[in-house]
Amino acid sequence: MKKPGIDLSTASCPIPLTEYPTVLLAHGGGGKLTQQLIHKMFLSSFGNPHLDPLHDGATLELGGSRLAFTTDSYVVSPLFFPGGNIGSLSVHGTVNDLSMCGARPLYLSAGFIIEEGLPMDELWRIVTAMQEAAEESGVTLVTGDTKVLDRGKGDGIFINTTGIGSIPPGIEIHPDRARPGDRILLSGPIAEHGIAIMSVREGLAFETTIESDSAPLNGLVSEMLKASNTIRVLRDPTRGGVASALNEIAGQSGVGMHLHEDRIPVREEVKGACELLGLDPLYVANEGKVLAIVPAEESNRVLEAMHAHPLGREATDIGEVTASRPGVVTMTSSIGGTRIVDMLSGEQLPRIC
Amino acid sequence: MKKPGIDLSTASCPIPLTEYPTVLLAHGGGGKLTQQLIHKMFLSSFGNPHLDPLHDGATLELGGSRLAFTTDSYVVSPLFFPGGNIGSLSVHGTVNDLSMCGARPLYLSAGFIIEEGLPMDELWRIVTAMQEAAEESGVTLVTGDTKVLDRGKGDGIFINTTGIGSIPPGIEIHPDRARPGDRILLSGPIAEHGIAIMSVREGLAFETTIESDSAPLNGLVSEMLKASNTIRVLRDPTRGGVASALNEIAGQSGVGMHLHEDRIPVREEVKGACELLGLDPLYVANEGKVLAIVPAEESNRVLEAMHAHPLGREATDIGEVTASRPGVVTMTSSIGGTRIVDMLSGEQLPRIC
Repeated sequence: MKKPGIDLSTASCPIPLTEYPTVLLAHGGGGKLTQQLIHKMFLSSFGNPHLDPLHDGATLELGGSRLAFTTDSYVVSPLFFPGGNIGSLSVHGTVNDLSMCGARPLYLSAGFIIEEGLPMDELWRIVTAMQEAAEESGVTLVTGDTKVLDRGKGDGIFINTTGIGSIPPGIEIHPDRARPGDRILLSGPIAEHGIAIMSVREGLAFETTIESDSAPLNGLVSEMLKASNTIRVLRDPTRGGVASALNEIAGQSGVGMHLHEDRIPVREEVKGACELLGLDPLYVANEGKVLAIVPAEESNRVLEAMHAHPLGREATDIGEVTASRPGVVTMTSSIGGTRIVDMLSGEQLPRIC
Repeated sequence: MKKPGIDLSTASCPIPLTEYPTVLLAHGGGGKLTQQLIHKMFLSSFGNPHLDPLHDGATLELGGSRLAFTTDSYVVSPLFFPGGNIGSLSVHGTVNDLSMCGARPLYLSAGFIIEEGLPMDELWRIVTAMQEAAEESGVTLVTGDTKVLDRGKGDGIFINTTGIGSIPPGIEIHPDRARPGDRILLSGPIAEHGIAIMSVREGLAFETTIESDSAPLNGLVSEMLKASNTIRVLRDPTRGGVASALNEIAGQSGVGMHLHEDRIPVREEVKGACELLGLDPLYVANEGKVLAIVPAEESNRVLEAMHAHPLGREATDIGEVTASRPGVVTMTSSIGGTRIVDMLSGEQLPRIC
């Protein structure tokens, strides 16, 4: 059937095919190539005021109320890991994306793509983990879809969850709102999700099992917003870690950022595992941490609210937003020097979420 | 992290593991095994008033207005077929699911799961087809997500689309509302999508290329609802075809149905292909057809509205809802006998959508 409207099909591919004839793993890594794919491919086609690549979800006005709407597909490998599985992760991740829009998460959809041969009891454990995570988060799974792939054409199970939340009046959270002088708050120690996954993949055994921090952040965010409704930006530093999240925000707000390495909490065992694996914890995924950018005069109040919540007990102020070097994130390292914390160009850890 | 709430994990898998130790292709085929998986596995875990397995989406009350919310993952193979590709299909399919709730489709999310190595220009053709289909349907793609799988762990690309639509006041469409005496209307010739896909897969060449009927049904449905706001049930007979869709509705409404084979339009070339492939067109997927169950006194009005729309020109009245044999669909065949049109237990055509 001939489709009306603009004929995009005669436009040529906006990504240079000589340089990137095929999609690479790094296009999904959350770094520069992901940004290029999103900007050149998706925004040039779908571009509209709602589609905002640097936010965790879209904000929609419907029937007089503001809704947040966000989608995520989960392809984590392995399916089961210390601290969770793909089912709990798929609920926490989307609950958190809604929370990062300042929304109260309400409803989720679940789309299952299952490879023929997935053990039925694994599916059951995944589904029950989803339901438990939904109950813990106070969201309801309201609609779903199941597809089965022929053996060898998938990898166990992939899950898409898409969520709807309501944004209370007066809340204006967006990654372009960081301003020089603002403080950068982090809710707790980083890199635990990524290291939990990598430890299983690489068969590493540590004295203490490193567990994923996968958790629903809506309760914590709700307490933070009660403490201050002038929070500028919220972001859960998943794929690409704290470094990529802050680079994105710095770019979109047109500000610089300066971090202090010794204020960024990393557990000793995670630090050890990162050294062993040659990974920088700043780039490793988290699934239960939030970054908040807050006006300086409100930051103590927000930090206190974070400390009072079980998921924010170890929250710290890790740095400040600056007017110098817009789009650049710098850091004073523990040993004293200052370095640029750039966005990775490729994939540090594939299939981490 | 220990999760509060009921401990589903101690409950054993509700699907007998001795009988089904693993997920089979047939669990995704839209037939009896799919129903079993949905009822025993998903409903027993997620069961809540919104989650309604036999409807194409959930109906939510939000801020005083009624919304429809629906999700679908598209795993069609091949990615490109006569009449469309996975991109256009992923928009039409979800627009249609919203339409089947009586909703006006508004917003879509798109979740891409891409296998490393997908040619970049194929991705571009898919993305542009999505945008063209969105424009044609009057919906906006507002949020998205991209994941990349390592080579060999996927099959080119899978796309999830999830949609939000608004349900106008006074519209009450639900698969439990069919009543004895109602008429069953069908918008046009069947089995074209499934046969278009199978022809490519099997390398069949016909005198005329059989094209998928993939199309957005919201315009047609809007005209039908203008003609009568007492339409009881709407359903797009995709996976499992007309036979599975009507069996589901008959079961949920607790009514019988009787069809007349000679009133069900099937194009000659599709009929020929079905014979060649050993397929019954009643079970083959459609992606641009609607079944409507309508009170008898309104059926002519609705049929006239269908005939006036390009996608309903060949609409016919294919049978009636009966009080006898609740849950059973019967058909008078072209040569005169009556047979039961049962739901398939397995998979007729895998990965058709």
